Amino acid sequence: MTTTAGTGCHVGVDVGGTKVLAVRLAAEGSGGAVTDHPGEAAVAAVAYRPMPGREAPPEAVEVAVAEAALEAAGGRPIAAIGVSAAGLVDRAGDTYLFGAHLPWRDAPVRARLEQRTGVRVVLDNDANCAAYAEVRAGAARGVDDVVLVTVGTGIGGALVLGGRVVRGAHGLAGEFGHVQVVPDGLACECGLRGCWEQYCSGRALERVTRVALGRHLDGPEVAARARRGDGVAREAFGSVGTWLGVGVAGLVSAYDPELVVVGGGVASVGDLLLEPARVALRTSLQGTDHRPVPPLVPAALGPEAGAIGAALLARDGRG
Amino acid sequence: MTTTAGTGCHVGVDVGGTKVLAVRLAAEGSGGAVTDHPGEAAVAAVAYRPMPGREAPPEAVEVAVAEAALEAAGGRPIAAIGVSAAGLVDRAGDTYLFGAHLPWRDAPVRARLEQRTGVRVVLDNDANCAAYAEVRAGAARGVDDVVLVTVGTGIGGALVLGGRVVRGAHGLAGEFGHVQVVPDGLACECGLRGCWEQYCSGRALERVTRVALGRHLDGPEVAARARRGDGVAREAFGSVGTWLGVGVAGLVSAYDPELVVVGGGVASVGDLLLEPARVALRTSLQGTDHRPVPPLVPAALGPEAGAIGAALLARDGRG
Repeated sequence: MTTTAGTGCHVGVDVGGTKVLAVRLAAEGSGGAVTDHPGEAAVAAVAYRPMPGREAPPEAVEVAVAEAALEAAGGRPIAAIGVSAAGLVDRAGDTYLFGAHLPWRDAPVRARLEQRTGVRVVLDNDANCAAYAEVRAGAARGVDDVVLVTVGTGIGGALVLGGRVVRGAHGLAGEFGHVQVVPDGLACECGLRGCWEQYCSGRALERVTRVALGRHLDGPEVAARARRGDGVAREAFGSVGTWLGVGVAGLVSAYDPELVVVGGGVASVGDLLLEPARVALRTSLQGTDHRPVPPLVPAALGPEAGAIGAALLARDGRG
Repeated sequence: MTTTAGTGCHVGVDVGGTKVLAVRLAAEGSGGAVTDHPGEAAVAAVAYRPMPGREAPPEAVEVAVAEAALEAAGGRPIAAIGVSAAGLVDRAGDTYLFGAHLPWRDAPVRARLEQRTGVRVVLDNDANCAAYAEVRAGAARGVDDVVLVTVGTGIGGALVLGGRVVRGAHGLAGEFGHVQVVPDGLACECGLRGCWEQYCSGRALERVTRVALGRHLDGPEVAARARRGDGVAREAFGSVGTWLGVGVAGLVSAYDPELVVVGGGVASVGDLLLEPARVALRTSLQGTDHRPVPPLVPAALGPEAGAIGAALLARDGRG
């Protein structure tokens, strides 16, 4: 079999704190998707590898990425691999700069993965990839100006302007989680105080619940209780959701998006988080008599959004 | 005399709360500038009208704009007039939506001024105009990704990404002044609490001074005292400057600009404001071991920036 530039499948690999997830995009109109994502986001195959961990040699992560990509490709020729990585990626998409959960440090990951796989590689931050996926084929399909906030262990974010991901002068745009929202507030792992993700994240959800109950429940337990109507759990989501809305109001003032998309594990409870966020967005935004308040909607592509977006960026070019 | 499209001079008119200021751009290489702004920002003539006030009929403001523009043109044919307005302008640049100091409300100002003057008119928000002027010919010349913050009576702001002013989905991007920085903080005229401009503005400067001295000094008096070394006045600028840096850190996290430009009347004291802001920016920004901290520099074009930027947008197209 011979391959030429532009032929072959597109694979996306999401490198997160606990696992490496690869997807192969379904060829258009080919059917046979293994997820229920529609249109361009349809996935034909999924493969996993465990994340080697932040103490592992950097090469171990590259091996895991390459193996997962090849497994997802299932022997088909690969046109390009997109890599979605939790952490800071430089503007050009060549270098992984820093992240709390991966061993790469100022690592030329794109070139190294191209050498290892023999395939063109596109590298970007995971929230940027997720935002691109949501804009191309998810909750923000057809919308030009979008803010994406992911609420998970911490906060991730991305900005889309005119249909393109905004990367900033050094590739670091969209790092909303450490914006100060409370002067002299809660201490954050980053060394600052009062960061948004101290009040709006899975850890915040657990902290609020622990204070109310006097014992620890992890995020999924709080979510299960909230779905069953438990008052303490619902109030915890109410607190996190209210802080989500307050922070989003600031982003809306600054950026004036048409739509705000909320993803991440904590957002999987849906309106238990998003309703208090919508109330807080409206009451924290100036001049709502004179301006539209953008809808705040859940992300559509779930935990595969980063990998799907990486594959779409590999297909379309990083721009 | 006949004029053809593209010939004639470019005039910019800034419509503020107290006055209407018109400038005529100096033709390139023509000399004879009346200000010391260099290059494209060189101004050949200036004209003023008093602002008719927010209780005046809307037409009175249009008359003042047209008169000031014609006086600045000095009988020359006008290729286009740019209008810089304090307040909210729609994305298309057709309609002035709302502003605290002008009588226009949802007013089709661009078309009305074109009818009145017979000349093509370009309309934009004053901070957007000032940002464009600083990028084309001022402190941010040659820089693609810029945040502009103006500290005056309140806070104005604009974003430039890829050399273009970001207007947002509805034209409302860059409204930084009412981002909440203190939960349940000081009450703001906008109806919210804890807005950034309650802590970082000329009014904040006066409030901090009044609390310390027990009597009122207006902003220019505080500035004069600070320049003479008065401790209370310097501490007041220190407080406002620190809040400037804290807020700018949030904008830097979100947008990752290459440069932050600070304009507005309060910033005319220079480093008395900007040095505490630089310290606070550095100490409020996450991961400064792993990321560049953008320089925070004063605007170069002073109170004419809005009018100059409007004229340049009229020349170049609003984009």
